[in-house]
Amino acid sequence: MMNSIGVFGLGVMGANLAINMANKGEKVAVYNYTPDLIETFQEKHLHENATAYYELTRFIDSLEKPRKIFLMVTAGAVVDSVIESLFPLLDQGDIIMDGGNSNFQDSNRRYNDLKEKGLHFIGVGVSGGEEGALNGPSLMPSGDKEAYQQVAPILEKIAAQVDGKACCSYLGKEGSGHYVKMVHNGIEYADMQLITEAYQFLRERLGLGVNEIAAIFAEWNKGELESYLMEITADILTRVDEETNQPMIDVILDKSGQKGTGKWTSQNALDIGVPLTIVTESVFMRFLSNVKEERMIAEQELEGPAPLLEQTDKNEWIELVRQALVMGKISTYAQGFYQYKQASEQYKWDLQLDEIALIFRGGCIIRAGILNEISNAFKEDKELSNLFLSPYFKAILNKNQAAMRKVVIKGMETGLALPCFNASLVYYDGYRSGKSGANLIQAQRDYFGAHTFERTDKDGHFHIQW
Amino acid sequence: MMNSIGVFGLGVMGANLAINMANKGEKVAVYNYTPDLIETFQEKHLHENATAYYELTRFIDSLEKPRKIFLMVTAGAVVDSVIESLFPLLDQGDIIMDGGNSNFQDSNRRYNDLKEKGLHFIGVGVSGGEEGALNGPSLMPSGDKEAYQQVAPILEKIAAQVDGKACCSYLGKEGSGHYVKMVHNGIEYADMQLITEAYQFLRERLGLGVNEIAAIFAEWNKGELESYLMEITADILTRVDEETNQPMIDVILDKSGQKGTGKWTSQNALDIGVPLTIVTESVFMRFLSNVKEERMIAEQELEGPAPLLEQTDKNEWIELVRQALVMGKISTYAQGFYQYKQASEQYKWDLQLDEIALIFRGGCIIRAGILNEISNAFKEDKELSNLFLSPYFKAILNKNQAAMRKVVIKGMETGLALPCFNASLVYYDGYRSGKSGANLIQAQRDYFGAHTFERTDKDGHFHIQW
Repeated sequence: MMNSIGVFGLGVMGANLAINMANKGEKVAVYNYTPDLIETFQEKHLHENATAYYELTRFIDSLEKPRKIFLMVTAGAVVDSVIESLFPLLDQGDIIMDGGNSNFQDSNRRYNDLKEKGLHFIGVGVSGGEEGALNGPSLMPSGDKEAYQQVAPILEKIAAQVDGKACCSYLGKEGSGHYVKMVHNGIEYADMQLITEAYQFLRERLGLGVNEIAAIFAEWNKGELESYLMEITADILTRVDEETNQPMIDVILDKSGQKGTGKWTSQNALDIGVPLTIVTESVFMRFLSNVKEERMIAEQELEGPAPLLEQTDKNEWIELVRQALVMGKISTYAQGFYQYKQASEQYKWDLQLDEIALIFRGGCIIRAGILNEISNAFKEDKELSNLFLSPYFKAILNKNQAAMRKVVIKGMETGLALPCFNASLVYYDGYRSGKSGANLIQAQRDYFGAHTFERTDKDGHFHIQW
Repeated sequence: MMNSIGVFGLGVMGANLAINMANKGEKVAVYNYTPDLIETFQEKHLHENATAYYELTRFIDSLEKPRKIFLMVTAGAVVDSVIESLFPLLDQGDIIMDGGNSNFQDSNRRYNDLKEKGLHFIGVGVSGGEEGALNGPSLMPSGDKEAYQQVAPILEKIAAQVDGKACCSYLGKEGSGHYVKMVHNGIEYADMQLITEAYQFLRERLGLGVNEIAAIFAEWNKGELESYLMEITADILTRVDEETNQPMIDVILDKSGQKGTGKWTSQNALDIGVPLTIVTESVFMRFLSNVKEERMIAEQELEGPAPLLEQTDKNEWIELVRQALVMGKISTYAQGFYQYKQASEQYKWDLQLDEIALIFRGGCIIRAGILNEISNAFKEDKELSNLFLSPYFKAILNKNQAAMRKVVIKGMETGLALPCFNASLVYYDGYRSGKSGANLIQAQRDYFGAHTFERTDKDGHFHIQW
């Protein structure tokens, strides 16, 4: 009996995806370059539908044709060397899927290289962490549509399901799936930073305790802010460190790492002309967090206002922070989906923005109730450029902008940095400026570099001797 | 009689640099791929020290050995093809200089390629526009120090001179000169945006007229804010459009272009872990300026507070804006020079930050009085990581941060986007936060991705089952 799919790479994510497939009734072949992880898999994951192979040729020969091989190996050069080693063993029409966090430009290249050789390459963005991989991730596949249709029954079966719909659908050609995943991760960075800023305001400016904040976040998670990140943050805040009996959050050092996908998102936004201010601030804040020793010196040396605690109106302020967080979240999605729109046009991918929002609803880290409304906004208006102009979100922004202003101003008055809240409000005010200050910038550019300018009253490009 | 240097590429910048060399007594050979610019050069720039050649071999053969060839051609693939065409005509030890706005990574590659072939490559950042090229630019050369020493007498002679010192000195190996120029341009973007925000506040919130603002800027240009960009902005604001009799600034469309070096600066900051928030905001705002039609719709659709005009205390507010602008400028330089420091360490370039500040004092677009103090700060403390911690700038920041807060808050209260002022203040408050919110972010990362965290009370990396 042949296997219907092979999983290559048995780290936690690969092993869990394989078991997910086996649980859904697929006959899965599994393989790893080093035998240790194959042994671990056999010990931990004995499953009637999963067969482990220690030899690459036997792994490949066990697969139905066209062969379907799901790579779950380290992104980067390893993917290329694995493809290289597979190539002589494959036949025309076989399908290689890459489920790692690959750079979309690498996926573009691999798609084209394999196409030339008569093989199919499907880049699959996978989100959901270990738990999602096992029980249902969000999957973002791209490549040739016909090839996708051959693997769709398996991918859509193992993906998270929301309202009877799989969190997996064909996104577009080339590496567009990894692109969608990349921006997803950028949004994730910003979402985490926004929640953190709400937490900091409640804790450090309103003086609330971690358990109070956990309860507030749990409450918020029942409304407009319902999301996985809100849920786990409430959970994190209730956790007590067993060693010190302190809140766990207070024992953790304030340095945060990053794996690069947030950075890539910002770099790509810079390449394609998208003002991705909120995600980029969140990436920069991770960098800033790592100069802890310098920050501790600066705290002594650089002055600011007293961090006033509000003695009154706590409930009013809590509601203002909630509204600000809603606005920050909408702004992040507006910028991220604008980036999808620009990428789709510039790379000719024909991305369906409403569909992308739908597959984020389950399995992935940024899953949130708001995604239904985002999907609706883009479904109702296929030409919509910016979520800010959709009736649903416009109404929320017009309501919440005043709260955002109050929170951000209070942060500034009390010396609390709220970079993503700030970026959200500045973007809002910049976006709704029919007349910006860019005329002066263009005048300066023409003055020193003869870069020309346009005029408000007639067409053309003009240069004057200043 | 042989020529001491050859200039390849006779666009405005190349022609002006050649005449600059000729004016300083060098025998200059000039050449261009297409004869039209050679003819133009001969018509416009007849000079006893400059000789034009229509044949590449004669141009090359006219040069003293080791030959010194200064390329002034379009950055990118053209530079490679020109080098390719020169190579068979050159001898070991000859020196190719590239004065275009080349990407520093390309310059790294060219440096190493030519080194293998026994030739020297010197990347030269050139700033100052057409006028600087003719009368004295700021030059940022890098490559092998011994090769630089052979061209130093010419480069240092044609560069701008400030206090008896040439605005040109050897910066480091590989493409570090183009790197220094790249970040220079990033700082330029931010500086322009900061001045624009000051202008917008004075005009749109205090209700001052363009001539009043021109006079204010001219006055500011005599003090702490003395700079070329301040000077030309004052000049721009006095200009009247001959056709409409309106202030020229009001006739110019508020869309601003960009050539890419600002974007590269931000992308590199993201690569090497530098929180370059102010430059990046200024790049994003140029992008946002280009969706003019969308902004005009958003202005109608999205609500904000009334743009209150201050009826009183205008002089007090003008001084607050001045102090805010000083702080914005210092913050921009602090981030940019932190980027130099990080690049120097990561790329092993041994950049001298005090020296870089000195060569920016004349010729280039960001020349400003403040650069003397920046140079002093890095000279006095070679280990200084961030200008914010130098005694001189710390004192200014501690004085000006309150003014910055007032201006930024007033912007938010009246719905005026001040992205770089904002980013400057947020960075200040973030930098002086001994304890940031990054512990919560790291907790989230550990929760969903097992990314581990550090603890405040002991060394090591920890992961818990949340």
